[in-house]
Amino acid sequence: MLRIVLEEITSHIKSLDIDDEAVKLMENYLINSSKIFICGYGESELVGKSFASRLSEIRRDVYVVSETIVPEIDEGNVLIAISGSGETEPTLTITKKAKSIGAKIISITSFTDSPLAQISDLIIEIPGRIKAKTKNYIERRVSGEYEPLTPFGTLFEISTRIFLEGIIAELAEK
Amino acid sequence: MLRIVLEEITSHIKSLDIDDEAVKLMENYLINSSKIFICGYGESELVGKSFASRLSEIRRDVYVVSETIVPEIDEGNVLIAISGSGETEPTLTITKKAKSIGAKIISITSFTDSPLAQISDLIIEIPGRIKAKTKNYIERRVSGEYEPLTPFGTLFEISTRIFLEGIIAELAEK
Amino acid sequence: MLRIVLEEITSHIKSLDIDDEAVKLMENYLINSSKIFICGYGESELVGKSFASRLSEIRRDVYVVSETIVPEIDEGNVLIAISGSGETEPTLTITKKAKSIGAKIISITSFTDSPLAQISDLIIEIPGRIKAKTKNYIERRVSGEYEPLTPFGTLFEISTRIFLEGIIAELAEK
Amino acid sequence: MLRIVLEEITSHIKSLDIDDEAVKLMENYLINSSKIFICGYGESELVGKSFASRLSEIRRDVYVVSETIVPEIDEGNVLIAISGSGETEPTLTITKKAKSIGAKIISITSFTDSPLAQISDLIIEIPGRIKAKTKNYIERRVSGEYEPLTPFGTLFEISTRIFLEGIIAELAEK
Repeated sequence: MLRIVLEEITSHIKSLDIDDEAVKLMENYLINSSKIFICGYGESELVGKSFASRLSEIRRDVYVVSETIVPEIDEGNVLIAISGSGETEPTLTITKKAKSIGAKIISITSFTDSPLAQISDLIIEIPGRIKAKTKNYIERRVSGEYEPLTPFGTLFEISTRIFLEGIIAELAEK
Repeated sequence: MLRIVLEEITSHIKSLDIDDEAVKLMENYLINSSKIFICGYGESELVGKSFASRLSEIRRDVYVVSETIVPEIDEGNVLIAISGSGETEPTLTITKKAKSIGAKIISITSFTDSPLAQISDLIIEIPGRIKAKTKNYIERRVSGEYEPLTPFGTLFEISTRIFLEGIIAELAEK
Repeated sequence: MLRIVLEEITSHIKSLDIDDEAVKLMENYLINSSKIFICGYGESELVGKSFASRLSEIRRDVYVVSETIVPEIDEGNVLIAISGSGETEPTLTITKKAKSIGAKIISITSFTDSPLAQISDLIIEIPGRIKAKTKNYIERRVSGEYEPLTPFGTLFEISTRIFLEGIIAELAEK
Repeated sequence: MLRIVLEEITSHIKSLDIDDEAVKLMENYLINSSKIFICGYGESELVGKSFASRLSEIRRDVYVVSETIVPEIDEGNVLIAISGSGETEPTLTITKKAKSIGAKIISITSFTDSPLAQISDLIIEIPGRIKAKTKNYIERRVSGEYEPLTPFGTLFEISTRIFLEGIIAELAEK
């Protein structure tokens, strides 16, 4: 079973259909924004923190929205919202607020027609997530409504983590 | 100025009008619930974590909703929701969900007529907070809408912290 | 018992012997440092996060060492180390490292003769803590070696929290 | 560059030399321990939290050592220590303490001859990490001593994350 999971995950990553244009746009946003904000809940938050930690190492001014220190977001700043379903709360509410202030929104999601994707300036599509019944992340946990426990349970998060490591390597090279 | 703040805070704490009946009820809930959940955002989350840490020391089975490990809440379990305004999101949404499952809700708030208080089984009133313009905590931070910076800025949280320390002392004695 | 605890805590806060010269020095450090770092573990970490959150609101560039985003500390930057015993690990190790880089150290502790105080540029003495048997904070938790559960259990942390709120009020006024 | 990174990471995962005996032992420990503790710092902490979150979903009683609620570890409990270098502080100190209490230690590391591996009851070897100059994780961050920024920068953490997802799938099946 362990070997099957490893095989499935690597196949999934290899099959990622990377949109070179979107990647280039994402990198431009990350290079040019004076402040970068990262938003996600649950496993998406952990992926976001890893990415934030790496961005910080290459000297970008980055903040994780759920941590203690969060300056206000300014017009033209970039918010990266990570949500497999594209409808996780409170990610969606925060993204809407940031957009209303004039921030540029990059969403990383499995669903390009989700509410999150629809308000984004740039969508990075990472397949792997199926739709959850309950939209609010913490609500879901409190009620014990977990994602299906397939080997693919966290495929979206693992793929996103690896994709973002690739982005870091590209930025570090520049 | 420092001395004035210390004086104001101690006066505020001394003037807390403690409802002995409510305290007794709260202690009964904390003693009898097989699992205790703590929920709060921003400074209220920090106060909640302190209280959770202390409850854990006196061997209560306690969970902070925003941390990694959160079992599902069962009927009859206790959720303590801390929110000065009584309308902070996502605290309110989580509390509603917990109530719908049959959890007992203890709210700690400055406003006994707030949405949070209205769905609570027990209200602990701790004055100190004035109404915020924006209900969503993280949204508020992202938009830079901070609380007024008076010496009373975090009076609710400090008073709640001390009140809860008193609760721990009572429980430890029993 | 609850009323006794409230009474004891307020008495303790009122009896804080504030060194005006030290407070003035601390404020100068906080105003002039281009980056401020906060370090503490356990309840001291929660107090540190509250202070960091408030410093951030008055537009200081502040970082909590235990969070995801921590730039490197530069010569002349300020590190605030909070430890009741003045010998908590990993606080002490981090403070030594910061000092070796040339950072200015402000320690907040109950013990002016502790290892932490001895390497500090400025000591803020807040009484309330008695000596712990085990120095390493997390080690202490894993082994279940808690602080004595007196009403004074977290007197140091509560007093520090209120003292730091006073500092914020002074800085906000300036 | 992005495609090279994805290719390198998948190759690395495919080349993982899984010791079936070790995996079986690890699963037995995870099934039989009444409490499971997870310890790691930096990116290893994020990987540990993901694993803890997944273990919790399959109803294991699990705790992340760096979070607020940590009961004491008892004889026979399992501690999983994640450290690429196998000498990260404070992971090593905590692991030693847990071992002295009689806990069973599972280490996940790139170095089977590291101090962490040497005190472990079971070593899971995940290659990918090169030796860091400074052992203390937070000290390393404060001093700006980051890992080399190759595409392999976080290869250990990503591989560990995927390996642990495989363990969850195996446990979920049982």
